[in-house]
Amino acid sequence: MRIQLTQAVTLDESGQRLRPIEMRIVDGVIDSLSERPLPREEGWQVYELGGGLVLPGLVDAHTHLYQSLGTGLYDGLGVNAWLEALIHGYTLSEDEAYDATLLGCVEAIRSGTTCVSEMTELAFADAAAQAILDSGLRASLAVMVGDQAEGNNPPDMNTHQALAATRSFFERWNGAGWGRLKVLMGPVGLAACTLDLVRGMRALAEELHTQIVTHCAEGPTETEAVRARYGASEVEMLERCGLLGPDCALVHAVWLSERDLQIIANHTGRVVHCPSTNLKIADGIAPAAALLKKGIPVALGCDGAASSGTYDLLKEARLASLLAKGSGMDAAALPAEQVLHMLTDYGAEASGWSGKVGRLAVGYRADLTVLRYPQAHLLGERGLLSRLIHNTAAGDVAAVFVDGSPLLWDGHMVSVDEEALVQRAAGRLRRRDFGPGAYPQKGQPPQAAPQEWAYFSRRTSKND
Amino acid sequence: MRIQLTQAVTLDESGQRLRPIEMRIVDGVIDSLSERPLPREEGWQVYELGGGLVLPGLVDAHTHLYQSLGTGLYDGLGVNAWLEALIHGYTLSEDEAYDATLLGCVEAIRSGTTCVSEMTELAFADAAAQAILDSGLRASLAVMVGDQAEGNNPPDMNTHQALAATRSFFERWNGAGWGRLKVLMGPVGLAACTLDLVRGMRALAEELHTQIVTHCAEGPTETEAVRARYGASEVEMLERCGLLGPDCALVHAVWLSERDLQIIANHTGRVVHCPSTNLKIADGIAPAAALLKKGIPVALGCDGAASSGTYDLLKEARLASLLAKGSGMDAAALPAEQVLHMLTDYGAEASGWSGKVGRLAVGYRADLTVLRYPQAHLLGERGLLSRLIHNTAAGDVAAVFVDGSPLLWDGHMVSVDEEALVQRAAGRLRRRDFGPGAYPQKGQPPQAAPQEWAYFSRRTSKND
Repeated sequence: MRIQLTQAVTLDESGQRLRPIEMRIVDGVIDSLSERPLPREEGWQVYELGGGLVLPGLVDAHTHLYQSLGTGLYDGLGVNAWLEALIHGYTLSEDEAYDATLLGCVEAIRSGTTCVSEMTELAFADAAAQAILDSGLRASLAVMVGDQAEGNNPPDMNTHQALAATRSFFERWNGAGWGRLKVLMGPVGLAACTLDLVRGMRALAEELHTQIVTHCAEGPTETEAVRARYGASEVEMLERCGLLGPDCALVHAVWLSERDLQIIANHTGRVVHCPSTNLKIADGIAPAAALLKKGIPVALGCDGAASSGTYDLLKEARLASLLAKGSGMDAAALPAEQVLHMLTDYGAEASGWSGKVGRLAVGYRADLTVLRYPQAHLLGERGLLSRLIHNTAAGDVAAVFVDGSPLLWDGHMVSVDEEALVQRAAGRLRRRDFGPGAYPQKGQPPQAAPQEWAYFSRRTSKND
Repeated sequence: MRIQLTQAVTLDESGQRLRPIEMRIVDGVIDSLSERPLPREEGWQVYELGGGLVLPGLVDAHTHLYQSLGTGLYDGLGVNAWLEALIHGYTLSEDEAYDATLLGCVEAIRSGTTCVSEMTELAFADAAAQAILDSGLRASLAVMVGDQAEGNNPPDMNTHQALAATRSFFERWNGAGWGRLKVLMGPVGLAACTLDLVRGMRALAEELHTQIVTHCAEGPTETEAVRARYGASEVEMLERCGLLGPDCALVHAVWLSERDLQIIANHTGRVVHCPSTNLKIADGIAPAAALLKKGIPVALGCDGAASSGTYDLLKEARLASLLAKGSGMDAAALPAEQVLHMLTDYGAEASGWSGKVGRLAVGYRADLTVLRYPQAHLLGERGLLSRLIHNTAAGDVAAVFVDGSPLLWDGHMVSVDEEALVQRAAGRLRRRDFGPGAYPQKGQPPQAAPQEWAYFSRRTSKND
């Protein structure tokens, strides 16, 4: 498949100026780049981008896309209550999981994401993988496994089962979509895993030549529970188990000591920052700027929409930038250039696509996000990079390409029958309660009571 | 003018269910509301909203729209350095101010705003007012006046001039656009105003039957300077001058003591929360949840885009919700219902439109924001209000009405020739530097150095 992109601009090395970009793509890989118009030749599929601004495709380095049907239904719960409510309230059939995951994919694509690192549940892992495959997204997939009780939540399986399920999922899905899907190892988090399982996952990663992703130090209770159990921090314990490394992404990384930061840096580890979830379910505020200062590449993740409320990575980028500045009282923290790295190549590194994805460069996969330019709020050149980080929105995304194929074109989904999907999903939300449901009636966790409010007057005319 | 809106839905009193809404508008005012289809009669202009979700028009209770051409050019500067750089770097001719303000209006309208409370500069106040009038937005306008040096920044005028300029602007613009524009009193902030001016502004507000808006306790330096000068907090001093009241909006309100909160509550004062600016230029984090708990209606403001980076109020709503939860470690803080109030009726109260704007009710002005519904990310009914606050984007706004007239229709600007404006503004950004420019070369303030980065490979083929 030979594809040519034309009539586009991109930011130059300074990040302060635009220049024209023409691109040729062969078999999904960027084959050549030029500032001058390339000749049009027979047999090439040409896409005219209408002056659009081309970026490396955005990488969402931590998602639970299957949570899309729970969006907005778990408000008001702190991380512990939230997790317990989700485990009891948000159970999906395979059909539901397929639609929910695909719905999450559409939202991600519409906001410019080309690659996700999805942690899914064993109960519907195949359906979820199929949905992502069908969406056209590039993805790293991990089945979350744990073999130890966390708080009131019992483990799903024992150590052997966890390792066997992971291996089996790897064998079924790694390399699917002509290499578009990759399977990672997904120990759910040290609070819910034995040390044997953690060591076993590292060994399996080595054997299968793949990477690792795990939740780490998200909430204070979890962090304290691990310390109470082992007399050491999560990061210290993961180090002792040999899990850390440039091929291991630690998701959240909120409650870290200075020593933890240094350990991660020593192992050239990777961190995924999920600011929307961290704030919305009151995990705490992750030390993103401090991690980056240590030289640790921090990627961004939307996490699950039942906690973050979104699969729009542009929202995470804006939030990460503002939160680092405001929480540290340092307006120079996380400059826009750095946030763009977090959105692209740092994301690729955290999810196993280093050197393949995250840059516009010859030899890289042709994963591209194209924004409408110029617009009233996306103007000029010198301040444009800051505008991209702080003032874009999903509606600015005109086109999204993965492996050179359009998933979104001129604002319309190409890879998914969106209208049918939205109808199906709306039907599911009408028929079933995907929220905490009857669960809170057992006494806990409490759901925040909705406040009374009324915009729509009951009066129907002035004379009522 | 008789207008009928049909084929729409809105949230009911519970905020958990949708119901159909049909509306008749006479001379810009909501004349009747119905769940059942209203008959179509001769002489009524009918707008079919295609199943869209109707909300009361969003009120941006604090803006400096004229800063749009400075967006992205003042990154990396904390509040003091930022203010000094802006004063020296961002000077506009009247023509520039007109375009910059109109550009800000377009961005606001495209993201669902129907009413702004704009604080503008005396040097180009008429041009700015004309731009807002031309945009079709409803607006409260205030000219910022100060008669005292703040830090290194000298005052523009003396007390008499400040009062005279305010009165003169009021006489020229209050009530323009058949009542669509309103002029408020705008003492810029206590750090830059004498007590005589503050008292004079209160007296003028009484005489002219209008409201007051002022910056208050934005940054730590400003707050400490006022305390050093008077031995009392800004809020205490404003109270002594008689400025506080339900007709006085305090913008920012970051550095407040518990006593300050109580004083504002005692006077049933209004506060405008600008979280993007507060974080981006490292003002600090305003106690929005604590203010609301005291019964103080907190509205939302985008402030100027040279600090906040945006005129998209939906971004402020999301940020306010998440920031209150995360910074206070309380996931139940600022429930979505409350944030919707902040976006609508609390905004109206803070900017002088109480009882006229901010609700869908008979007798209110027909200022409406219509969102596309359903979409992949805006689905269902029970979690929809949370989705509105946490997961909408400018592109979701299908239509915006002010006084029953469409400013945006089917995603296209009706009230402004957007393409011509964007072209003009792009030209201005090419021709002139609207950033700190040569100013930092004098020694201060320092601008954050851009980090080196490069997405676009210099190589142009695999063989280079």
